[in-house]
Amino acid sequence: MRVTRLADLPTPAALVDVERMRRNIARMQARMDAMGVRFRPHVKTSKCLPVVEKQLAAGARGITVSTLKEAEQCFSAGIGDILYAVGVAPAKLPQALALRRRGCDLKLIVDSVEAAGAVAAYGRGEGETFEAWIEIDTDGHRSGVAPDDQARLLAVGRALHGGGARLGGVMTHAGASYACDTPDALAKIAEQERSGAVRAADRLRAAGLPCATVSVGSTPTALSAARLDGVTEVRAGVYVFFDLVMRNVGVCTTGEIALSVLTTVIGHQPQRGWAIVDAGWMAMSRDRGTGQQLRDCGYGEVCDESGAPLDGYLVTGANQEHGIVAKPGAPDPDIVSRFPIGTRLRILPNHACATGAQHPEYHAIGASGDAQVWPRIHGW
Amino acid sequence: MRVTRLADLPTPAALVDVERMRRNIARMQARMDAMGVRFRPHVKTSKCLPVVEKQLAAGARGITVSTLKEAEQCFSAGIGDILYAVGVAPAKLPQALALRRRGCDLKLIVDSVEAAGAVAAYGRGEGETFEAWIEIDTDGHRSGVAPDDQARLLAVGRALHGGGARLGGVMTHAGASYACDTPDALAKIAEQERSGAVRAADRLRAAGLPCATVSVGSTPTALSAARLDGVTEVRAGVYVFFDLVMRNVGVCTTGEIALSVLTTVIGHQPQRGWAIVDAGWMAMSRDRGTGQQLRDCGYGEVCDESGAPLDGYLVTGANQEHGIVAKPGAPDPDIVSRFPIGTRLRILPNHACATGAQHPEYHAIGASGDAQVWPRIHGW
Repeated sequence: MRVTRLADLPTPAALVDVERMRRNIARMQARMDAMGVRFRPHVKTSKCLPVVEKQLAAGARGITVSTLKEAEQCFSAGIGDILYAVGVAPAKLPQALALRRRGCDLKLIVDSVEAAGAVAAYGRGEGETFEAWIEIDTDGHRSGVAPDDQARLLAVGRALHGGGARLGGVMTHAGASYACDTPDALAKIAEQERSGAVRAADRLRAAGLPCATVSVGSTPTALSAARLDGVTEVRAGVYVFFDLVMRNVGVCTTGEIALSVLTTVIGHQPQRGWAIVDAGWMAMSRDRGTGQQLRDCGYGEVCDESGAPLDGYLVTGANQEHGIVAKPGAPDPDIVSRFPIGTRLRILPNHACATGAQHPEYHAIGASGDAQVWPRIHGW
Repeated sequence: MRVTRLADLPTPAALVDVERMRRNIARMQARMDAMGVRFRPHVKTSKCLPVVEKQLAAGARGITVSTLKEAEQCFSAGIGDILYAVGVAPAKLPQALALRRRGCDLKLIVDSVEAAGAVAAYGRGEGETFEAWIEIDTDGHRSGVAPDDQARLLAVGRALHGGGARLGGVMTHAGASYACDTPDALAKIAEQERSGAVRAADRLRAAGLPCATVSVGSTPTALSAARLDGVTEVRAGVYVFFDLVMRNVGVCTTGEIALSVLTTVIGHQPQRGWAIVDAGWMAMSRDRGTGQQLRDCGYGEVCDESGAPLDGYLVTGANQEHGIVAKPGAPDPDIVSRFPIGTRLRILPNHACATGAQHPEYHAIGASGDAQVWPRIHGW
């Protein structure tokens, strides 16, 4: 791996603070260990094997992926236990089959009789017993079978179990937890996620269907659940880096955010109190997740090159390769002397998954300022 | 190049309708030819050499880039006349020098005495005469010297010209044109862009400074300017594909949008009138540009697999690998039968530059449904 120095990196560049990341991984794993559940990190945040390897080394068991490309690249790196946590399109079953034939313990998810039937039928035709979990909708935000929609739940379960597939369990993701910002609301949505998944599992078992796994998770609920009775595993993704949305939700501090974008000041509009930097939306992403929160961070919060926050300075606007750094509500009359052309800054992102995705690679910054290139998985 | 069929492409995938793109290129070039100006397309939209080659073959002279990586890859493909249209950070000057030493006619832009001085001084130290243009701010949206800020304008010009660099001209980009949506407003911002750039050039010339090039442009103004007196060249980027933001601005029709994302239905929430597709924000980008326009298109407008619009259906929500297809205001009770699992749809994007950037490659679809892989330039 190429090793260079933070000070020598061209901008814009995505930086991972390795020590912060290590602490984030340790914190989550310790919590999951203490609660007695398996932890299956979602690799969609980092899409980066050196990160995933550290999650597994810390005690994670298996991984979650958002694309079959992630599954293929992680399996090629020796990771066998993989949950593909997006409802499988029938046309992707040959790709899933190829992974299983190579020895990958790939699990699929379905939330309809049609998809369950397609998985089972394709497996029968190919002589392969696919394992699928039923996706449960515990918060109405997206996909899944409602825990109390007994008819649909059992029909999906039977389409798998009776159709020759392995019904491995249930899984849910309380994405609505991202909209919470108090400990009470977080504890409530975590319990709603837990109880919904467990209730669905109980309904399947009561009908004589197998349900070994009860998988729940999101970063906010994983860090807020008071109890996990009946849950066998938890999944979470963004905790590995954290971001401003998670800081605003209340599950991390600014100082725990491990992903930032290194940028350079390229100009000013002194009358407006603006510094122009070379991190626009191409480097930050168009994600404005904090725009729906009480503390709107624009396109990111500004830190100095070492990562120390410069309170009040945000990226208030972004074009493709231009960001505008300003102090909302209190334009800085000294912006030119404060941030002369060539000044290097770091920007903390709204949403680590989206910001990371804009970059071909991370620069992993060690305690001594050394920078290693960590490639990302790109595309489908 | 790999050639396959539209029907065989995995999803999600970024599709370029080659015939629509060809017409978009021809329309812009014909307009610029008729107005008697050079046309210098901005490659930041496509970041794709096969697209750029078609723009040049149609009559474009030179290109505009948003990163030095684009410059390097285009120069390696034989394109010599390149404007790097982002204010250059001093630390990037060695990279710019290397391009010039290889024979690239690379032009830089500056909008401050500090940056102009840095370019001139670095050139003197290296024995290289850099060419730089002065960025003019004709609409207050971002960077540039105000046309009537005579002191700053001349100081920047003198820092270049007197410092040993070549002052090649002025350039401006009326990004504020994206906020217009009537022919009158578009004509007005186009004239503001033109007259501001020409006024700045006149001021430089009156002070005895050279200003051979007067470069203006954005897709909306390029397609709306009534006159271009005093302008020597026009730049535009997104016109090559167009998108929903440009449709809402009023400079293209839905049927001229040449970029779309192919996706597959993976599930439903029948009670809500939702179909779930495998194009989330990772495939569409987080760009919500139409959210600030009168016609909000969510994360995109839905078409059938052939590209025919399905009026009223939008991607109303997006997670990383999930999109929600629905009919806002009129939930479709027949969503399951209308779009069964496995149905393939195309989504027209809000912002072609942002959506393209999410994909490692385009699939260029010809009239007969053949698909060629066209790689994109990624990163910095």
